[in-house]
Amino acid sequence: MNPIPDWLRNYRASWLAGDAVAGLIVTVMLIPQSLAYALLAGLPAEVGLYASLLPIVAYALLGSSMTLAVGPVAVASLMTASALQPLAAAGSVQYVQLAVLLSLLSGVMLLAFGLLRLGFLAHFLSHPVISGFITGSAVLIAVGQLKHLLGVQVQGENVFQTLSSLAHALPQTKPAVLALGGASVLFLWFARKYLAKLLVRTGLSAKAADMAAKLAPMLVVIVSTAVVSLWGLDRSHGVPVVGNVPQGLPALGLPAWDWGSVQALWLPALLISLVGFVESVSVAQSLALKRQQRIEPNRELLGLGAANLASAVSGGFPVTGGFARSVVNFAAGANTPLAGVISAALMALVVAFFTGWFHALPQAVLAATIIVAVTGLIDWGTLREAWHYDKADALSLIATALGVMALGVEAGILLGVALSLGTLVWRSSHPHMAVVGRVPGTEHFRNVDRHQVVTEPGLVAVRVDESLYFANASVLQDRIEALVHANPAARHVLLVCSAVNQIDTTALGVLGDLERSLRERGIRFLLAEVKGPVMDRLQDTDFGRRMQGQVFLSTHEAFADVAQRQQVG
Amino acid sequence: MNPIPDWLRNYRASWLAGDAVAGLIVTVMLIPQSLAYALLAGLPAEVGLYASLLPIVAYALLGSSMTLAVGPVAVASLMTASALQPLAAAGSVQYVQLAVLLSLLSGVMLLAFGLLRLGFLAHFLSHPVISGFITGSAVLIAVGQLKHLLGVQVQGENVFQTLSSLAHALPQTKPAVLALGGASVLFLWFARKYLAKLLVRTGLSAKAADMAAKLAPMLVVIVSTAVVSLWGLDRSHGVPVVGNVPQGLPALGLPAWDWGSVQALWLPALLISLVGFVESVSVAQSLALKRQQRIEPNRELLGLGAANLASAVSGGFPVTGGFARSVVNFAAGANTPLAGVISAALMALVVAFFTGWFHALPQAVLAATIIVAVTGLIDWGTLREAWHYDKADALSLIATALGVMALGVEAGILLGVALSLGTLVWRSSHPHMAVVGRVPGTEHFRNVDRHQVVTEPGLVAVRVDESLYFANASVLQDRIEALVHANPAARHVLLVCSAVNQIDTTALGVLGDLERSLRERGIRFLLAEVKGPVMDRLQDTDFGRRMQGQVFLSTHEAFADVAQRQQVG
Repeated sequence: MNPIPDWLRNYRASWLAGDAVAGLIVTVMLIPQSLAYALLAGLPAEVGLYASLLPIVAYALLGSSMTLAVGPVAVASLMTASALQPLAAAGSVQYVQLAVLLSLLSGVMLLAFGLLRLGFLAHFLSHPVISGFITGSAVLIAVGQLKHLLGVQVQGENVFQTLSSLAHALPQTKPAVLALGGASVLFLWFARKYLAKLLVRTGLSAKAADMAAKLAPMLVVIVSTAVVSLWGLDRSHGVPVVGNVPQGLPALGLPAWDWGSVQALWLPALLISLVGFVESVSVAQSLALKRQQRIEPNRELLGLGAANLASAVSGGFPVTGGFARSVVNFAAGANTPLAGVISAALMALVVAFFTGWFHALPQAVLAATIIVAVTGLIDWGTLREAWHYDKADALSLIATALGVMALGVEAGILLGVALSLGTLVWRSSHPHMAVVGRVPGTEHFRNVDRHQVVTEPGLVAVRVDESLYFANASVLQDRIEALVHANPAARHVLLVCSAVNQIDTTALGVLGDLERSLRERGIRFLLAEVKGPVMDRLQDTDFGRRMQGQVFLSTHEAFADVAQRQQVG
Repeated sequence: MNPIPDWLRNYRASWLAGDAVAGLIVTVMLIPQSLAYALLAGLPAEVGLYASLLPIVAYALLGSSMTLAVGPVAVASLMTASALQPLAAAGSVQYVQLAVLLSLLSGVMLLAFGLLRLGFLAHFLSHPVISGFITGSAVLIAVGQLKHLLGVQVQGENVFQTLSSLAHALPQTKPAVLALGGASVLFLWFARKYLAKLLVRTGLSAKAADMAAKLAPMLVVIVSTAVVSLWGLDRSHGVPVVGNVPQGLPALGLPAWDWGSVQALWLPALLISLVGFVESVSVAQSLALKRQQRIEPNRELLGLGAANLASAVSGGFPVTGGFARSVVNFAAGANTPLAGVISAALMALVVAFFTGWFHALPQAVLAATIIVAVTGLIDWGTLREAWHYDKADALSLIATALGVMALGVEAGILLGVALSLGTLVWRSSHPHMAVVGRVPGTEHFRNVDRHQVVTEPGLVAVRVDESLYFANASVLQDRIEALVHANPAARHVLLVCSAVNQIDTTALGVLGDLERSLRERGIRFLLAEVKGPVMDRLQDTDFGRRMQGQVFLSTHEAFADVAQRQQVG
């Protein structure tokens, strides 16, 4: 692999304008978001800023998407908080060290998965389960931020406890905090819903208006910081602010670690990696397709792994590809990851020289930007669609969402994975099977339940419409035994394998047992239409040797053989 | 459901002789086994005896197998020991209570699974993984029993530590114990290998000789007990013996329990239930097939659940269907579960009146019967076959076996389940796909890589040979995008759905995205040969509505439509 990525080697001057504009706009979104998601993760503001520098550059070198915007995102920040809260006090030195270690572990896992080409791991999660997870996390995040809007302290291990604690704490609400936070939520919500339309009326193009509306959070940050700063609201009215953010670029180095922490963090790191990967790939994929570009899941693993390693060595926390910023990056005309590199350079300037400006930024305003951002993640559409189309999927979605709200993000996602796999095993363990007969006068054989076909007395002919493996082999055996049981005159059982692309060891064993047990009762077991590669492997097994003379090229030949034997008999 | 089982309502006098003989022979096997497996589980001898009374009767009422012999078995006993050892001292009152509770939990779970018809859960385990688990457990059991053969104390959390501790303890070997134990192992091993053949030479029928050879453990028990008893070896040479076994039938009642214990035991109970169920069903199935009888997995869950509940209320530990006793029961001519009931009645006589006879039975002899029994479970055949046939399956087997030996039974079986599911997802996520073209002069369409076929320029026609769901939908999308990318002239993409039996919500979403993204590039997305039930559900979705006019009955019609449009264009 060439160390210089394709996009950089073949860079064209004409791409620069788009990359520069997109890089600038994404930076303006990224500043409030990186501060807000650090708050959400329970980390000091600078950790969010650090996570928005090197990771972008690392992804640009290894990732395959031209437009994915990597950095702190809401769900990964929530998962970080949930992983660290049992281990250390939020905001403490140890907490920050563990966050950095989490990023390191996540980076190592993603790189390892990428090198082992385990991109298929993303398929462990079905779309309804991901949707339920995101929706549940969004509710959990929004509810968790309400305390910052009111300026109160609350406790709670799940959504319901937090809400009840919040209800008790209502009388302690600080009016100045609520005024700032409430006004921010209203303005941001209005901006998301209507600002673009209003700006179009003033003569802006639809695209420019859309871009401008995305800058609303930055505007709220500037105005509220100015208000707090001018009137000294942090001192006079007890408005919690971001406070001192250390100025200067982060020192590079590996985080402190010990085996105990690694043991406590490997599972959260795995889940953050998996969820982040799935989300990033799906965003990157949908953007790439619009420009006929390609996303390579295994290269995404490498890109995201490198980004997390870069975050860890520069004092940041877990990062992944964000939905909102990626869409803006794309729409603003980013052509290559150079847009991200420009954005990282601008962020570096901010970190190096301007962190003092965030001192008076109220936490309530950051909470407002988080709340408005995550409510956009609540996904009723998928639930409605799944409910309409496939109740099992809808129930998985609801169970995962409720699981996240009631049990937390880790238990929720594990429940979701279990439900996904349970559904997969359940569906796989019910292969479609049909008893077939001859369409009169032809060499075609179809389902006896759906077509007028002729069967051969003494022959049970079954077509199975799936590969045979451990999850369905015994179901096939049961079905055939039931058919033989129901048809005491049967002397031949034919399995039509036209749809069988694979037979695993378990299924091979089941077929062997089936053949043996049928033979003991004087019934011949026949196969037809076995595909070439499947037959090649069978031939060299005990079962394959026993089946010599009982495997037919076509169903027609098998039927003819049975008919001939029955005439002779 | 009629409370009286079919076999009892329709009982025929002619069945009685077979049932009585089988019941007697199984009892003679069961006495040493129930004592030995209690020893293996770290429980007092009477707990093993209690587990051999009511559970058999409970299974007889609800189970579906005519010949499965339920009771204490080696692997479940090992799993019991492994679950309880972290919680209480082996043999203590609390340990026994926890064992009974484990049986209760296992019974409740199995019954619940049976009522919910979750028999398909057994498909979570592939045959190689089960084989690896049994082999690993057998090694773990045999190594764990060596200390009883030598009369020494050892410590060790896994096979390797135990062996090393054993090597250090060798000098403390008690000669009398080793003599008794070693002689027993040699005789039992000889009996298993050669006794039946020898007996045949003396004129016995092959079947009778086989039965007689199975009684060897009982003979060893009688002879060794007599030797120890006559010479007082337990006192003079420190030979550990079974000691006092309380006489009299067990009191009935629910075990003591608390939430803490339930939380500690639910996972082991689940694993014991799952493994026991899978083993029982496979033994029951293979025996039933020989007589053209049927096993109903959901009824097996009820039968085994009832057996474990019965074990719990009568002071026993987890039970399941045993391989060796079931085979003997079958071969000895058992016709119905009455054989088991007779065996339970004989065991009840032993428990009520004759437990004093076990006082001088040496533990070394029980260990010898365990070692010889479990070495028969070590399964090289499946490993050889899997290695030859499918390396991925062979590696799963080896990993599970090593996992059990190095990490213990629970971690081993969880690793096995993870490997099974990983393989399933991996295989499912690689559906077979073929680009198809027309066989000249026909309406047949085949793989372009294997047949001389004619394709339509501007049309990419793909057949997918599997149902579409979350594990493979994005692979299909990637493949189609790659084909379109490689064929810039493509204006139509046809998906031939002849093998698609289901489309889940995730796949529906992917197809929708695919259609939309192709349309944005001016490419029509077409479907052909969509099965009736699949089409019915698609019709009512947004995707289905957008596809109106783009779904063709046959591949032929789709090709014709494209050809016509291209002529016009």
